Formats: sequence, C-alpha cells, structure tokens
Amino acid sequence: MEIASANHEKSGPITRGLAWLEIMLGKFKAKVIEVARKTKTVGQEDPRRIIHSLKVGLAITLVSLFYYFEPLYDGFGVSAMWAVLTVVVVFEFTVGATLGRGLNRGLATLLAGALGFGAHHLASLSGEKGEPILLGLFVFLLAAAVTFVRFFPRMKARYDYGLLIFILTFCLISVSGYRDDEVLDMAQRRLSTILIGSAISVLICIFICPVWAGDNLHNLVANNMEKLGSFLEGFASEYFKKSGNGESKEKKTFLLGYKTVLNSKHSEESLANFARWEPPHGPFRFHHPWKHYQKIGSLSRHCAYRIEAINGYLNSEIQTPPEIRSKIEEGCTKMSTECGKALKELASSIKTMTRPSSAETHIANSKTAAKNLKSLLKTGMWEDIDLLEVIPAATIASLLVDVVTCTEKIAESVDELASLAHFKSMDPIISPEQPKLHQETTQPSSSIDKLHHVITIDGSPPDCPGKEHPLAPMTV
Amino acid sequence: MEIASANHEKSGPITRGLAWLEIMLGKFKAKVIEVARKTKTVGQEDPRRIIHSLKVGLAITLVSLFYYFEPLYDGFGVSAMWAVLTVVVVFEFTVGATLGRGLNRGLATLLAGALGFGAHHLASLSGEKGEPILLGLFVFLLAAAVTFVRFFPRMKARYDYGLLIFILTFCLISVSGYRDDEVLDMAQRRLSTILIGSAISVLICIFICPVWAGDNLHNLVANNMEKLGSFLEGFASEYFKKSGNGESKEKKTFLLGYKTVLNSKHSEESLANFARWEPPHGPFRFHHPWKHYQKIGSLSRHCAYRIEAINGYLNSEIQTPPEIRSKIEEGCTKMSTECGKALKELASSIKTMTRPSSAETHIANSKTAAKNLKSLLKTGMWEDIDLLEVIPAATIASLLVDVVTCTEKIAESVDELASLAHFKSMDPIISPEQPKLHQETTQPSSSIDKLHHVITIDGSPPDCPGKEHPLAPMTV
Repeated sequence: MEIASANHEKSGPITRGLAWLEIMLGKFKAKVIEVARKTKTVGQEDPRRIIHSLKVGLAITLVSLFYYFEPLYDGFGVSAMWAVLTVVVVFEFTVGATLGRGLNRGLATLLAGALGFGAHHLASLSGEKGEPILLGLFVFLLAAAVTFVRFFPRMKARYDYGLLIFILTFCLISVSGYRDDEVLDMAQRRLSTILIGSAISVLICIFICPVWAGDNLHNLVANNMEKLGSFLEGFASEYFKKSGNGESKEKKTFLLGYKTVLNSKHSEESLANFARWEPPHGPFRFHHPWKHYQKIGSLSRHCAYRIEAINGYLNSEIQTPPEIRSKIEEGCTKMSTECGKALKELASSIKTMTRPSSAETHIANSKTAAKNLKSLLKTGMWEDIDLLEVIPAATIASLLVDVVTCTEKIAESVDELASLAHFKSMDPIISPEQPKLHQETTQPSSSIDKLHHVITIDGSPPDCPGKEHPLAPMTV
Repeated sequence: MEIASANHEKSGPITRGLAWLEIMLGKFKAKVIEVARKTKTVGQEDPRRIIHSLKVGLAITLVSLFYYFEPLYDGFGVSAMWAVLTVVVVFEFTVGATLGRGLNRGLATLLAGALGFGAHHLASLSGEKGEPILLGLFVFLLAAAVTFVRFFPRMKARYDYGLLIFILTFCLISVSGYRDDEVLDMAQRRLSTILIGSAISVLICIFICPVWAGDNLHNLVANNMEKLGSFLEGFASEYFKKSGNGESKEKKTFLLGYKTVLNSKHSEESLANFARWEPPHGPFRFHHPWKHYQKIGSLSRHCAYRIEAINGYLNSEIQTPPEIRSKIEEGCTKMSTECGKALKELASSIKTMTRPSSAETHIANSKTAAKNLKSLLKTGMWEDIDLLEVIPAATIASLLVDVVTCTEKIAESVDELASLAHFKSMDPIISPEQPKLHQETTQPSSSIDKLHHVITIDGSPPDCPGKEHPLAPMTV
C-alpha cells in the first residue's frame, strides 16, 4: 500500500485505479470482518437465537408446501398466502409470545369475520346506494372504537395484537363483501389458512428446542438477585482493602453486574405477559404465579437503587481514614456479605425450586450485625473525630442497613412464591442453625440448570459457612 | 334487592328467575359503569388518544374507497386489500412510528419484491422438478438469515418491522410465482397498493393533529427533570418541619412524582428511535440531537436513584433528634432547594429551548452550601453526640451532596444539548448575578407550551430568588 501511494504521482490512470480498487477492497474486507464478528457475538450471547432462526426458516418452508403440492393448493388457492403471512408474523422467539400472537390472531379473525359478515349482510339490506355509506360508517366506528380500546393498559398488555387483527379482518371481510359475493367462502378460507399457519408456528415453536418465556422470567429474576448478591459479597473487600489499586480495576466487572438490574422492569413485564399464555412445562404448572415474579423483581430493583448509591462511594473524593474505617469494617463486611449470601441462596432456591433453607440464617446474621454496629456507634468511642471524614463510611453503613431491610423483604417475597408455586421443601430435620449440615443439603438438590452449580461453587465455596465463625465471636 | 332475597324461599320459580335477572342486570350495569369510567380516564389522561382513534377510523374509511368506486377498483382489484391492511398495520400513535413503519414497509417490499422475482426467475431455469426444491431452499435460507439479523440490537431498534416485511414479501413473491405466472404484475400491484396505504397513513398522521415522538421525548425528559426538582424543593420542608403528620400524607403525592423517572429508560429509548424518523417540525430541525436526550435522561435517572435512597429516610425508624437536625437544616435545605430550582430551571430551559440562564447560579449556591456544610461538620461542635442518631441525617446530607454532583452533570449535559440544538440565548447584558432581572427575562420567553407558564408560576414563584437572601448571610 505504501509503495502504491509513493508511486502515486508518477503512475498512470490504470495504476491509480488499481490502487483505489485495492483500498475499496480493503474497506469492504474490514466491513465484512466486522459484520462477521458481530454475527458471532450475537450468536454466542444466546445460541438459542441461531436455533430460532432455523425454526422460522423451517416453518415458512413447510407452510409454502401449500403452493407446491397440487392437492393442497386446490383446496385453498391464493388463500394459501395467508398461511405464509401468518407464520411470518406469528412466529416469535418465546413460546408464550408465539402462542399469544397465534391465539390473538385466530380468535380475532374468527370474531371479526363473523361481525364483518353481519355488517356486510346488514348493509346489503339497505339497497345499492345505502350500502357503501353504511359500510363506511361501520368501518369508521369500529376502527375508531377498537383503536381507542388499544390504549387501555390491560388490553395493550395482552390483546394488542388481537385488537389490531380484529380491525383488519373486520374491514377486509365487510368491505371485500361489497365486491366479492362469496364473502362467507372467502372468510372461511381465510380463517382456516390462518389457523393452519398459527398451528404450524406454535407446534414448531413448542416441539423443537422451545424457548419458554416463563423459564426466561424465572432465570432473569433469579440472576438479578444473584448479581446483587455478587456485588454485596465483593463490596466489603473492595472498599476496606483498597491496597492494590492497579488490579482492582479488572476485578470491578463483577461489581458492575447489578447495573442491568436497575432497568429490568420492562423485560420482566413483557416476559410475565408472555408466560401467562404458556401451557405447563418443566417444573411450572398451570397458573404458576408469574405475576409474583414481577413483585420480587420490583423489590430487587429497590435493593439495586441502594446499591447504586453505595457504589458511588467506592470512588468517592472524601475518603474515610483507615482507623475509622476499621472500626466499622467488621459490621459492614458482615452485613454486606451475609446479605449477599442470603440473596444468592434465595436466587438458587428459585432456580432449583426448593424452599430457601439457610437464607433466614444469613438474614438473621446480617440483622445482628446491623444491631451490633448500631450499638458500636452508640457506645461513643467516637470522641475527637472529624465528622466530615466519618460521613462517607457512615452513609455506607446506613445504606447497608437499608439493604438488609430490602433483602428481608425479598426473602419474604420469595417465601410467598415458594408457597404459591409449591416449591419442594428441604429435609426438615436439618435446622438452619447447623450451617455445616445445611451446606450438604443444598449441594445435591435437583439443579435444573448448570448455571446453579457454577454459582454455588464460584459464589459461595463449600467452606464458606465455616469461614464465618472467625468473625462471629468478635464485637460485631 | 333486599326484599327480593328475603322473599326468596317462599317465591315460585318465576319470581326467583326475576330476582336472578335483576342481580345479573345490576352486575352488568356495574360493569358498564366501570368500563365507562375507565374509558373516561384513558381519554382524560391524554386526549390525543381520542383524536388518534378518529384519525385511524378516517384513514381506513378513506382507503376502503378503493372498493366502492368502480374506476379505482378496476385498477387494483383484490390487491386493494393490501392498502387496507397497510393502513391498519402502519398507522401508529406518533408520526415517527408511523413514518418508520411506512418507510420500512415500502422499502422492504420493494427490495424483497425484486429479490423474490429474481429468485423465482432463477428457480424456473432449473426445470419443473428442480424449481420447488430450489425455491424451498431459497426461502429457508433467506428466512433464517433475516430472522437472525433481527437479533442485532441496532437492526432491531430501527428496522425490525422492515426485516419482517422483507421475509414476508420475499416468500409471497417467490412462492406465489410458482403458481401465478403474472408475478411481476402481482408484485407491482402489491407494491403500489402498499405505497398508497402508507402514504395515506403518513399524510393523515402528519396533517391532522400530529403527535410527534420528538415532542413527546422532549417533554418527557424535561418533565422528568421537573419531577426531581419538585421532590428536592419539597423535601427539606417535609423532613425538617415534621410537625403536622396528619396533613403531610396528602402533600406527599408531589414527593412521589420522581418514582416514574426510575423506570423511564424504555420509553425514552423507543421515543428517540421514532423521533429520528421525523421530518423537521416546530422548533426541531433536521438532525436534532435526539440521542442526546437519552444521555440527559440517563443522568436524571442517576439522580433519581439517589433521591429514592433519600426518600427512604423520610419515614426512617431512627429519627435524628431535632437539635442535631437543626444544625444541618440550613445546609441541607439550601442544597436541596437550590438543586431543585436548578433542575426546574433546566427543565424549563429545555421546554422553551432557551439557554439556561440562572441554573448555574443555583448550582453554584448549592455547591457553596455543600462546602459550608462540610466545614460545619469539620469544626467539631459535635462532641457528646450519639453517632447513631446522627447517621440518618448525615446520610441524607451525604446523599444530597451526591445529588448536587448529579445536578451539575445534568446541567453540563443540558448545556451541550443547548449548543447542539442551537437553543436561543437570553439577553447577554443580564448577568446571572442579578436574580431579580433574570426572572423578568425568563418569563416572557417564547413558551412553546402552556405547561411552562404553570410551572414557572407554581414551581418557582417570581419572588423566589429574592427569598434566598435571608438564608445567604447565615453560616451555611
């Protein structure tokens, strides 16, 4: 390339053209590599996306068989088009979304078809001149009314697509009826092709590597709690042992995991709406309390807001001097790590769908730590201190006490979920006061996904409950 | 009703039937009243919803004229159906969303139609037996590939609908081609009806009471800042003057306004995506920096997280005794109200699209207050105190200092927006040090909406900057 540009001035138009071509090819190559890299990332982030794409391709290819096979085509003719259209529009990533759209589309077509046929019949009674006017009026009124209904929050959440299809079908049937006298025949063919399209989508979606919205919601809520737990477990050592500043930056990635929790409301909401369309699957029965996950999610977010405020003090300008920090270190460390453990325990209890066994102990521990810290603050070893320097540490302590309250609420909410969803309970002989034993019961529980194992090993190593003891007899 | 149930036992089946009917009618009536009430609420919340519904009705009625008028129908025939379908599917609440969908649909139909025709031609070369196989392969590959592309975050944000229509049209054209030899004719008719449908939707959407996504985003971001401002202005008096607990509950509604800010990310994102499709309108030119609103929104949310933590202390169990509270009262009140004023000023500066004039002063004031509070804390009038009791107040003070930092960042970001979007600047003669004069310049500025006036009067009364003086000479 360098040689090419050096010779640039001397060379003829052909050489220049070749150089230009080379540059363009280089750019094109870079672009292709970038797209390939992105494609790889998107696929690696969630390999189910690749499978989903292949499933969509399969469903559309299947439904286009209507065109290729004589006997099928003779039955439906051009209406076969509606089957293709339905598959493209109905096939979504999760089973719940696909089912929701399919049912919405099918039901709305049925109802609107019947109503449209009625409107067509009614209008045709009013003579040749009155018919288009009456039809126009019907269409206007229905379209305006149903469009308004789409603004109702409840309708929007579950039936938005159905309402859209309702308007569509009503207009098509009632208006086409003006020209085509075989409306009933047309409506019936349209309905059956739509039903076939929906059925193919739903079947492929359910029976080939299904992606359940319920599973996703279940895991999302549990993972979010785990992220909060990771922060809390890691926070204390990050804040109090700030010696090697160089390597701490690398470590910080796990401290930022909680950030995604802050904005998780929208995805939780839509997943809960989809999940309600889903049939029983895996460990989830009919009427699984999907709504309740939103409650837990909301409590987790409240905890995340406090953590966000705490995180601000990790890099605060005013640093509390080490001698003051060390006074509250034990209390804060205990609160933070115990809450973190409790949250992780609760998360894994959701994941394995077993009643949380040791979370109560951890919360009790963190509450004791909070109490001890309070009395430590009260005892007044605090003369001759610079209040300004104490404040950052005091704020963190105070926010951690809030986090303890949040964690307690989350635990209550998970307990509610456990009874609503009939979580399996652990062996009742083992009391929560025996951390060594409890550990053994948590480990071999029926783990529904591999993630759980990784977490149990990474997050709270088997000897963790034992490690608490050296801290316990101390003042905090 | 009571009489009916009292006579229940003695009466015959007819009376019982009547009583049952009466109850059912009562229930039905209650249901109708509830739906009517909800309808009223939905309409009152945003009257533009009613207009939107009527607009949709009008657009569909207009497009169904294709069926009623002989000359129009002769041109398009059954394809007129696609125009109706397009209007129903494309017409969205905001201009940006409608334009985005219309353009996506039009362009995708054009491209996919051409590609589908090419595929059909290519397949037809391979003989009668090879054609369906080759077509099936094309459809499978394209559907799978495009479905995968829909997972790319950038594509999803702007072209999701276009990609869907791309698959749809490609399949319809290439597969229908197998049966219908007039594919080109069909594709052309489909394209033109879709263009007509899109054009009618877009025109009605733009020219009859348009709802601009850009306007909505602009106001959403400004209103969110205003809500934070309201909290901060009201917080200090709520926290420090907690005498009449009875009436404070009513007042608290304005203290909870900030809660909606916490979860505003999703709506800001989608509005920003829609706004980018919109042509210049009102005060917004081409390439208005819509992306920048998301940045301001994100900073506002960070401020809201701190406020959420502060709000937790309004009803905290541990109450700092009044004598300690009163020491920090002035500092905290000043920080809080000055930040509140700055945020409201910034919000109204966005609303009126004028450069913020006095926000800097307010922020400077709040920073001074923070500094003074810090030195007050340092001077050590704090012997013989119960640190535990101080902590809630200290935490609030500390979080308020964070809020000051957040507000400063928001102000910087609004300044950036002001230069990016060429906000009008105020009369440069009036320096920000003259609050009395500044007030007069803010008032008559070209207010683009009535809300601004209400806010200026309600939120920061004209004599407000004067009111600061009594506080200024004090220690804080």
